[in-house]
Amino acid sequence: MSTSSAPPAKPPMREALVAAAFQLFMERGYEQTTVDDIVALAEVGRRSFFRYFPSKEDVVFPDHEGCLADMTAFLAAGDGGGEPVRRVCDAARLVLRMYAENPAFSVQRYRLTRRVPGLRAYELSVVWRYERALAAYLRGRFAGRTDGILRADVIAAAVVAAHNNALRSWLRSDGEGDAETAVDHALGCVRAAFAEAPARSGPSPFPPGPPRPDDVLVLVARRDAPLWQVVRQFETARGESS
Amino acid sequence: MSTSSAPPAKPPMREALVAAAFQLFMERGYEQTTVDDIVALAEVGRRSFFRYFPSKEDVVFPDHEGCLADMTAFLAAGDGGGEPVRRVCDAARLVLRMYAENPAFSVQRYRLTRRVPGLRAYELSVVWRYERALAAYLRGRFAGRTDGILRADVIAAAVVAAHNNALRSWLRSDGEGDAETAVDHALGCVRAAFAEAPARSGPSPFPPGPPRPDDVLVLVARRDAPLWQVVRQFETARGESS
Repeated sequence: MSTSSAPPAKPPMREALVAAAFQLFMERGYEQTTVDDIVALAEVGRRSFFRYFPSKEDVVFPDHEGCLADMTAFLAAGDGGGEPVRRVCDAARLVLRMYAENPAFSVQRYRLTRRVPGLRAYELSVVWRYERALAAYLRGRFAGRTDGILRADVIAAAVVAAHNNALRSWLRSDGEGDAETAVDHALGCVRAAFAEAPARSGPSPFPPGPPRPDDVLVLVARRDAPLWQVVRQFETARGESS
Repeated sequence: MSTSSAPPAKPPMREALVAAAFQLFMERGYEQTTVDDIVALAEVGRRSFFRYFPSKEDVVFPDHEGCLADMTAFLAAGDGGGEPVRRVCDAARLVLRMYAENPAFSVQRYRLTRRVPGLRAYELSVVWRYERALAAYLRGRFAGRTDGILRADVIAAAVVAAHNNALRSWLRSDGEGDAETAVDHALGCVRAAFAEAPARSGPSPFPPGPPRPDDVLVLVARRDAPLWQVVRQFETARGESS
């Protein structure tokens, strides 16, 4: 469900540059702050800045490259079993976790990004890279299937949209409330729309016999119940955590 | 289903600028072409260029603003009846039509956009604006519903992803083949995942009370049944077509 390895320790200089940059962005505005201003406040040289960040925009999103790498590794580490849509939902949660680790910083950046069109554009390109990472995984899982590529692209987009819907609500609420629960709920809706049977690794040697009584769940649902509610009810009944 | 009004006649100067720009982009490359080069070839002044295009990037996508306006008008013209997902799929088809009107130009631009990162970023921001237009319409249609905003955002993203999957396949095939059929198929898959009963025109005069026996569905499912099977069982039981 999650990568449990501790993140590598960050060089203090990198953190100092991020802190200096955000202090100046808040005081003067993003456009009015130069890289020279940032390195002066952080008391490091220009070359140190560009060792960590290719451009001023990159210092606004210091953790996305690492998170993209974590996501790619998480997806690559999958054993190819398991439900593919569940797997990409779990991968998307890595992004949420990055934001939730530091709510004050995330909220500050969210406000900054709203105000600066260039940062919005940067953010769109980052979101696009997450989406392509999820789509690439799903394309692999759906390889050889009719419409596999289409399905992969659509599900990746839906997962990203659901994740970002919940993430943005949380950011707009100034990081109050339970982001994880909101994201779980949003991703649950996508899973309800797209989830499917886990791929078998070869034909089952033991075809299922008739169900025993305790293998069966009985669900009672209103006819007009939303699909996600039925899915949750089923998952709760069989004792899965969402 | 489609806007039937003829497009307004474009000023010849605007077309001349686009033609000159693309001739130079192909001959010298995008980065090596300046606005001065373009206006010299088109035999117009710099101010004429900037009257039509805010920047060099904009001349690469001369029809998107018009298409966004058409899409917004098309969605606004809806009577609020009809199936919302179908409506946004029809709106997305306006984009395809713009590309299919001029396959040679569209293919040329697609190749250019692959090569120039700045144009990729521009394209992402255009795609984002289409997606927000669709989402805004759906948010209106789903207003007051539980998870209405979430549902709107996810469906808009899925529609855009499906449309672009088919569009890109067509562009990669150099504009050969039937783009409309491919897009229809792709959008059909999204509708299958998300379509719902047509919304009522006006509030229901009979608010739902406690469920009557036939308002309730009873499902019996194996504990190890895959999620999709339970979803399908529920949908079948309440008489939905997939």
